[in-house]
Amino acid sequence: MSERAPASASFTVGVRAHNLTRMSDTALFGPDNLPYGLFSTPDSPGHRRLGIRYGDDVLDAGAAALAFGSAHADVLQQPSLNPLMAAGRSVWRAVRAESRSWLTEDVHRETAARHLLPLSGVRLHLPFEVADYVDFYASEQHATNVGRIFRPDDEALTPNWKHLPIGYHGRAGTVVVSGTPVVRPQGQRKPPNEPLPLFGPSRRLDIEAEVGFVVGAPSELGAQVGLDGFRDHVFGVTLLNDWSARDLQAWEYVPLGPFLGKSFATSVSPWITPLEALDAARVAPPARDLPLLPYLDDSAEGLAEGGLDLRLTVRLNGHVIAEPPFSTMYWTAAQQLAHLTVNGASLRTGDLYASGTVSGPEPAQFGSLLELTWGGREPLELPDGKRTFLEDGDVVTLTAWCPGPAGTRLGLGEVTGEVRPAVGA
Amino acid sequence: MSERAPASASFTVGVRAHNLTRMSDTALFGPDNLPYGLFSTPDSPGHRRLGIRYGDDVLDAGAAALAFGSAHADVLQQPSLNPLMAAGRSVWRAVRAESRSWLTEDVHRETAARHLLPLSGVRLHLPFEVADYVDFYASEQHATNVGRIFRPDDEALTPNWKHLPIGYHGRAGTVVVSGTPVVRPQGQRKPPNEPLPLFGPSRRLDIEAEVGFVVGAPSELGAQVGLDGFRDHVFGVTLLNDWSARDLQAWEYVPLGPFLGKSFATSVSPWITPLEALDAARVAPPARDLPLLPYLDDSAEGLAEGGLDLRLTVRLNGHVIAEPPFSTMYWTAAQQLAHLTVNGASLRTGDLYASGTVSGPEPAQFGSLLELTWGGREPLELPDGKRTFLEDGDVVTLTAWCPGPAGTRLGLGEVTGEVRPAVGA
Repeated sequence: MSERAPASASFTVGVRAHNLTRMSDTALFGPDNLPYGLFSTPDSPGHRRLGIRYGDDVLDAGAAALAFGSAHADVLQQPSLNPLMAAGRSVWRAVRAESRSWLTEDVHRETAARHLLPLSGVRLHLPFEVADYVDFYASEQHATNVGRIFRPDDEALTPNWKHLPIGYHGRAGTVVVSGTPVVRPQGQRKPPNEPLPLFGPSRRLDIEAEVGFVVGAPSELGAQVGLDGFRDHVFGVTLLNDWSARDLQAWEYVPLGPFLGKSFATSVSPWITPLEALDAARVAPPARDLPLLPYLDDSAEGLAEGGLDLRLTVRLNGHVIAEPPFSTMYWTAAQQLAHLTVNGASLRTGDLYASGTVSGPEPAQFGSLLELTWGGREPLELPDGKRTFLEDGDVVTLTAWCPGPAGTRLGLGEVTGEVRPAVGA
Repeated sequence: MSERAPASASFTVGVRAHNLTRMSDTALFGPDNLPYGLFSTPDSPGHRRLGIRYGDDVLDAGAAALAFGSAHADVLQQPSLNPLMAAGRSVWRAVRAESRSWLTEDVHRETAARHLLPLSGVRLHLPFEVADYVDFYASEQHATNVGRIFRPDDEALTPNWKHLPIGYHGRAGTVVVSGTPVVRPQGQRKPPNEPLPLFGPSRRLDIEAEVGFVVGAPSELGAQVGLDGFRDHVFGVTLLNDWSARDLQAWEYVPLGPFLGKSFATSVSPWITPLEALDAARVAPPARDLPLLPYLDDSAEGLAEGGLDLRLTVRLNGHVIAEPPFSTMYWTAAQQLAHLTVNGASLRTGDLYASGTVSGPEPAQFGSLLELTWGGREPLELPDGKRTFLEDGDVVTLTAWCPGPAGTRLGLGEVTGEVRPAVGA
């Protein structure tokens, strides 16, 4: 069969059963993608099940594993992805190969079809239990833009920026799945001409288009995970919207970093794409301007293609407002993991770390409204009006695709969220 | 019986069974204290049980609850404190009253004694599963000292400091129980006279003496927990050592805050003291220099005694090096919780937030070596030699007591840790 689309009997089951609104998505979730998620059905809403996306369907992975007598049925029958994530790379590979064969091989298709459900008929949940959440700051263009906007009197990049991937811990408990409404946060802001801070709903609510990496295999306290350990520990990839209240952030972030300006919500895809699915998207990161310390030096063979050619799209109320290219990120996910653990910090199953806002060199490639409107000074002209920061009712959607094997394209699970008015406002 | 010490039949069981090394501790953990922990015994090391400390004994709470036919036996028979913590304030009160009666009333003492084990014979574990960990910066003296040492050319306090309790998220996965060795972290540091950062073990490993607050009852995303909600959500209190690598921290922390300089280990007591036990220690915080926004204004009746008169002691290799007074903290734990949630961020059972380093106005009250040695420039003279920052093999121990009912004293569970050499060093 063709590698380009899951045009199989099993796939047809889903297509018949529901209304396809975005036909192009079908091909992006073919047999070379197979991301994992967690779903429930309306007739048994409390029963969360592990699912594998295939075109516009979802495979009930636990039920299929039982039907096929899989040796990995135990981890596939859990109400969370975490047990599969914790099982390690050899199990990830085996389960992926197995489920691909169920969905694509003639002898299995009829059995598999019995465990496929149309995506439109299921509810998708946060796919894994988040342990620690770390947010990096790995785009040179983004860090330069933010430096120019927030600290116009200083050098745009701080002196440490090209020596280490700067990051900080965020709030794991407010990581939410795509589709969760985002309530406009309240808090303190201090306009420059006011003598005292004001309290109220944020007036500069923003998005950050990011890529998140999900840790599967844990590490011991005191052990460092080197660059070559990245693929043994990282299970997969998600899109991530790091919602940001710029006015709260600007007032609070010196000297200990962002806190309430970020902690109200972080949205992730309902689908985690296995790292292995992204092999055809591996690219070399940009040339480094300064020599790196050995634990971050990825110039050696086998490590040099640490970048990923993911093409992101940011839509505001359906209109494309940016197309950030992940391939331009200065620091790679492997470098971020090596840095995160170089002090002996341990990893847990479910640790999530995000790239930081993805911004390419062109203005149409900036991954936040802060940059797209240059601090709110240059509004975006959209068909339904001007925008600086987000208004109540706005819907932001992140999508992405990347090259797959043999000229195909793979999609990452989209992340969407609607802004709701502040509580009591 | 006297309120001052648990001089009861049940208590004698423990005294007979093991060697008391610190007799004074006995009185600090009497019937008005009763902190919770998690223990196992050598004959069944995998069986973690909820314990209540009583003098130098630990009550096997689950077994006692069964024996007494407690209505709360379910939450007391868990291998974690989290279910009890999640059960809410009315259950916390009921369990506390019940266990106090088991330990102190004549009719119950004989039964209770069968479920008391000498503390010296059990192993203590991390008492709860940490959800998110936040570290605040609430001591004016500490923030002033750090500002002077790290940013000598600027105002010591940033302009936001007296308007909001500054805090940031730390790494929950590396919160460890007292007694866990702390491996010296490696990382990047950049001495001012070096052109490039150097890599290696931290040379400025430090401690921070803090008090941690443990959230029991969760809150919904989007809901704010006001000052008056503090006692409904916070289960109890622990001592906390926020180990800090000052050289890593100084190089990395601009612009997004501390990361690897803190994330390698944070030590907490094995005992969580219920908030209710600290009622006699409530005091008014210091006078505020600036008016506060309403969500932080605790001048109203019922909120004004938001401070706690906890007297901390920091020992280095057994020698007292500081006695930080928690009553001097500018921001209270209730204000920190109100701030943490004012943007709608939700709370989870197991959220831990720490006060920040406790430093009083006198040099002998500073809660970190950074301050005690003024950035390493004024070494401490100890009986076994000079110290600026920690050396391998050093043992740091935090203890604290506070006023209890009727002139008694209550102790908090101590936090201790030994510094081990860097990996491969």
